[in-house]
Amino acid sequence: MEKLGLCTDLYELTMAQSYLEHGKTGNAVFSLFVRKLPEARNFLVSCGLETLLEQLERFRFGDEELKYLKNLGRFSTDFLDYLRDYEFRGNIYAIPEGRIFFQNEPIVQFEGSLPEVQILETLVINIIHFQTVIASKAVRSFLVSRGKALVDFGFRRAHGLEAGIYAARASYISGFAGTSNLEAGRRFGIPVFGTVAHSYIMIFDREEEAFKAFAESFPKNAVFLLDTYDTIEAAKKTVQLARKGVPVVGVRLDSGDIEYLSKEVRRILDEGGLKEVKIIVSGGVDEYRIDKWLSKGCPIDAFGVGTKFITSADAPYLDMAYKLVEYEGKPKVKTSPGKATFPFKRQVYRFYGEKGMERDEVVIYGEEAEGESLVDKVIEGGSLKIKLPSLNEIRERMMEDIERLPPELKSLEKHDYRVIIK
Amino acid sequence: MEKLGLCTDLYELTMAQSYLEHGKTGNAVFSLFVRKLPEARNFLVSCGLETLLEQLERFRFGDEELKYLKNLGRFSTDFLDYLRDYEFRGNIYAIPEGRIFFQNEPIVQFEGSLPEVQILETLVINIIHFQTVIASKAVRSFLVSRGKALVDFGFRRAHGLEAGIYAARASYISGFAGTSNLEAGRRFGIPVFGTVAHSYIMIFDREEEAFKAFAESFPKNAVFLLDTYDTIEAAKKTVQLARKGVPVVGVRLDSGDIEYLSKEVRRILDEGGLKEVKIIVSGGVDEYRIDKWLSKGCPIDAFGVGTKFITSADAPYLDMAYKLVEYEGKPKVKTSPGKATFPFKRQVYRFYGEKGMERDEVVIYGEEAEGESLVDKVIEGGSLKIKLPSLNEIRERMMEDIERLPPELKSLEKHDYRVIIK
Repeated sequence: MEKLGLCTDLYELTMAQSYLEHGKTGNAVFSLFVRKLPEARNFLVSCGLETLLEQLERFRFGDEELKYLKNLGRFSTDFLDYLRDYEFRGNIYAIPEGRIFFQNEPIVQFEGSLPEVQILETLVINIIHFQTVIASKAVRSFLVSRGKALVDFGFRRAHGLEAGIYAARASYISGFAGTSNLEAGRRFGIPVFGTVAHSYIMIFDREEEAFKAFAESFPKNAVFLLDTYDTIEAAKKTVQLARKGVPVVGVRLDSGDIEYLSKEVRRILDEGGLKEVKIIVSGGVDEYRIDKWLSKGCPIDAFGVGTKFITSADAPYLDMAYKLVEYEGKPKVKTSPGKATFPFKRQVYRFYGEKGMERDEVVIYGEEAEGESLVDKVIEGGSLKIKLPSLNEIRERMMEDIERLPPELKSLEKHDYRVIIK
Repeated sequence: MEKLGLCTDLYELTMAQSYLEHGKTGNAVFSLFVRKLPEARNFLVSCGLETLLEQLERFRFGDEELKYLKNLGRFSTDFLDYLRDYEFRGNIYAIPEGRIFFQNEPIVQFEGSLPEVQILETLVINIIHFQTVIASKAVRSFLVSRGKALVDFGFRRAHGLEAGIYAARASYISGFAGTSNLEAGRRFGIPVFGTVAHSYIMIFDREEEAFKAFAESFPKNAVFLLDTYDTIEAAKKTVQLARKGVPVVGVRLDSGDIEYLSKEVRRILDEGGLKEVKIIVSGGVDEYRIDKWLSKGCPIDAFGVGTKFITSADAPYLDMAYKLVEYEGKPKVKTSPGKATFPFKRQVYRFYGEKGMERDEVVIYGEEAEGESLVDKVIEGGSLKIKLPSLNEIRERMMEDIERLPPELKSLEKHDYRVIIK
């Protein structure tokens, strides 16, 4: 699909037509925010803005899209003409990618004529929600990784190809060293990593033959997968092969009792003179296991992090909403139980103390405060107003925010941060 | 991305190059299966084959892909030439979409030269895994829906646009009546539904003005959203408007105590002479809530099912693997703890009794048995061998399988089905 105009829910368009029919085309502000953080998240990582701005360029209605809509029999000719001319000409205010944020803070705010900003709701939530979910999950592994390398191994269990590609980007922002995903490598310049699968080992009659063959093909990247049959025996074979001059740079453990195996394999490698050979662990890795293994002194040098991170299994969604907060300069609020909203376009000011970040204040946009402002105007009158940062710049910004995160928020236990809505 | 060759993990390509270098190009069979069902799933629904076959056509390496791979500095010129010519020329055996299946049953089996089938691993798992996850979640809502309509409202919280589009298709296969997702509507011909959001109600000075305006724009589809301010009051306003001749076909409740509100709103509507007006419930809907509300007699006519279904929140991934099971006619098995595999290409036979499905037997392909065979040869020598069913045919097949599902497997409580591996 070249044009993304139909990447929306039907009701966005029915509302838009009715707005136009009733002259409701004044200036509106919609705010994207998270009402409440999941139990297993102390903070969130803003992610997805670059993708959103790209997709916004493609949010158009061409002949094919209009034909489909016409055939639904619900829409007026006037409205279909409106859609044919549609492109976003308003303003966007956003918390940049790679910044830490919290509940009730406006990640992205859209300002424009009411129908113009209404019909973007589904697209905006879809893109920012997913990438924020993944970045906010990935950073938890980074926080407990104690300098060990993390690699995204999740592509296969992401919710589609697109999800896998953007998740690789999100995890790189959140401190991962790279990905196994080649398309993400090509598209975003993320370093790529990879070894072999069990099938490779099984193809050869004997395990040591497989190791040797792989080292012949890739002497500089010879990582041996040890757990196809018996991990300890495979570690011993690695030492024997190395003695015969076969190059080896690392070994990978993908199953079994990792605490025992990592220590025992390390001992075997060290005694065999392979102190430089790295141990990589994969298979069911998440932040809890990384933290447990490293706190028990497991000699693991790198982790392949897959399924649980790429599906954000413990919190696969956020309570994120895109809500009308202002219309023709007047406040708009909803009072549904548990779903109340705060009116007006907003700025977030962050205040720092001795232990780093201390509190955020969410004020009405235009009110000055002493703290660091988080919200930037990124699009004005439909045009990009800032230079978008590179992926590495976003990652560095993330690292700076992590440095300033109070110690308790860095832990895997639940802690709350003070957000004051003014 | 037009070509999907890089939609793979780096290790698939390093393995393939090494296979070619070591003459390991014999006939191999890989099997895609689920090792163990999640706690909250009694069965799974096969979904994604049509997409997989489409994507397989696009799994090619063009100039851009090859340039990227060359620049990685790992691959030989011979291997890059191999990739330039790559297209799948082997065989595919599959359980058709919309069939119920269980642990250790081969959903899709790929047969071809070893490197040819190895490098498809990531793509195959990615596509089939996600769509199967979603279809298998969606059907649980259908099983407890007692004839009430279910509509996919999840697009915004799917893990990306692609995920939302394919999830709409998966949910339609699993018995949903339609979706709010227009792109899925266009692409797959799925019926689309939609009402209005809270923002629409908030734009008008008074709630009844909003209802009236929407009914003017869409008299045949006038569904009023009642919970922006006070649901009960809004229900009374609906009756007053109807008395004045304003058309209304339904009301939607999106928050609050649904058991109380649905009954009270029904009473108000009925007493106001609006017995034909439907009640639609959305907001945090999943199979457990549907079952609870309907078992308590809540007068709900349709459900908008969103976030929890589209992320399969209680089981966002399956323990699905693509494993080598046969090479040059010989069995291949892995013996890693908890990850053992069964050798050879397989057929599944299903046996029926008085209560419907009784047991499945997974036998070596070519062995005859009395039961119904589930695995079809769909691709032979790279070419489609069967006529792919339409989406409605897939959905009907799903309904037939549901009819034959034993009652205990239809419940939301955990029950096991007998799968015998021979």
